[in-house]
Amino acid sequence: MQIVSDIVSVRAALSPHRKQGQRIGFVPTMGALHEGHAALIRRARTDCNVVVVSIFVNPTQFGPHEDFERYPRTWEADCALCKREGVDLVFSPPAAVMYPEGYATYVTVERLSEPLCGRSRPGHFRGVATVVLKLFNIVAPDAAYFGWKDAQQLILIRRMTEDLNLPIEIVGVETVREADGLALSSRNRYLDAESRRRAPALYEALRLARQAFEQDGVADCAVLTRRICDHIDQHAGGRIDYVEIVSLDQLQPLTSIQKGNTLIALAVHLGGARLIDNIRL
Amino acid sequence: MQIVSDIVSVRAALSPHRKQGQRIGFVPTMGALHEGHAALIRRARTDCNVVVVSIFVNPTQFGPHEDFERYPRTWEADCALCKREGVDLVFSPPAAVMYPEGYATYVTVERLSEPLCGRSRPGHFRGVATVVLKLFNIVAPDAAYFGWKDAQQLILIRRMTEDLNLPIEIVGVETVREADGLALSSRNRYLDAESRRRAPALYEALRLARQAFEQDGVADCAVLTRRICDHIDQHAGGRIDYVEIVSLDQLQPLTSIQKGNTLIALAVHLGGARLIDNIRL
Repeated sequence: MQIVSDIVSVRAALSPHRKQGQRIGFVPTMGALHEGHAALIRRARTDCNVVVVSIFVNPTQFGPHEDFERYPRTWEADCALCKREGVDLVFSPPAAVMYPEGYATYVTVERLSEPLCGRSRPGHFRGVATVVLKLFNIVAPDAAYFGWKDAQQLILIRRMTEDLNLPIEIVGVETVREADGLALSSRNRYLDAESRRRAPALYEALRLARQAFEQDGVADCAVLTRRICDHIDQHAGGRIDYVEIVSLDQLQPLTSIQKGNTLIALAVHLGGARLIDNIRL
Repeated sequence: MQIVSDIVSVRAALSPHRKQGQRIGFVPTMGALHEGHAALIRRARTDCNVVVVSIFVNPTQFGPHEDFERYPRTWEADCALCKREGVDLVFSPPAAVMYPEGYATYVTVERLSEPLCGRSRPGHFRGVATVVLKLFNIVAPDAAYFGWKDAQQLILIRRMTEDLNLPIEIVGVETVREADGLALSSRNRYLDAESRRRAPALYEALRLARQAFEQDGVADCAVLTRRICDHIDQHAGGRIDYVEIVSLDQLQPLTSIQKGNTLIALAVHLGGARLIDNIRL
């Protein structure tokens, strides 16, 4: 496994593979890797000849009062996981390589960046779109892998990739969960013991909503949203940022479940962490 | 010469050349081609194995009250010029190919898009950056050619290309002028006979400023700006949009000429046309 921190080395490492027509798979990450990332890497490993992982805690996607400084950095363990999963190339640039002095270019994906996490994290998706586009241009992969855990990010990156005519397949990989249902996240480390014990109630609330729709035919989004909020209030506590039921393609609010085109997404502040989760119906 | 209007055909046409390691040169245009465009094409023809020209009147770079509707469309003459200059591939997409329903992604280059033409044409450079990035992703050239006539555009595209880590060389080509000094522009067609007769005074004013600096040592930008405005008022008439002296790298206002890093740029509304011109010191 090769580890590089500059752009020229990425291109040099991949150029012979590209010339041989090999398929290059790319998993962009902010490090603090867990089994969710491992699932992305395994999928890339299955689909592609060459697997590239980037590890870069991207400053432009954090708000001024967010957790950029304390975001977990676990370099040794990240490299061990990548090696174990058969990654070929790790790209870990310093911030000055990605955003040199005078940097001025940003990408916005209108509409899709505004609801859900976009409301409480202004500028977040601009930072995400910009860094992902830069990484796409540096790695020039055939396919890139994103988790459904960050559903809005995945949908927005798909839109950007299509809009900007990038010849890259965007692959969504299902959320990996702990045995008790909590979605894996680098930010789960922020949870104290009591919050960790309560956190599975978020996914429970989403499953109850799915059950209400699929088994009892409850399709009214206001009713389902209320039930989810009540379950979270009773069993998780914390402060709900949002619980929203939106269309999967446009992320627009729904009044009634559209089977095959519905995303139920939530964000909850719980014991020092802001947790997000979602299900698709 | 091949003429295509869809993206798949562009990629199919260029793929064999790319596989053979041939250098691909790209000249993006809005059609209404003149000898300025011919100079770009000739430079690409000299530097590259394959020359691609796009012809697309990009709606997103026109303001709501600008000349999108009446912008000259001269398809037959454009194709004849491309053929004469040895172009290999013309890409002329309909708007729905470039901006399909649901399109949402835009690129902004901060700071560089704000002064000069950016002030009177809000959104213009966002449209330019977005369409050029899309065309770059479709054509994937090794080099792209832009005229110094649109200096702000050239500087902004260079910045975007560097910021977004695109492996494309941006080549600037000197402005081509009529015998009397008027910079060639598709919009010169808008000039009535009297305005056409007066229009060379714009470049005269710029040359007088250069002469004042180079021969008489006048380096005070306020003085030089005043002299340019006076010359235009006396000899061209029309309405000055701006006359500005800025740094070439950052487009920031200068108080005194910085030799090697100065752009004197102007825009003047004259007899139905908005003309721009500039010189570098």
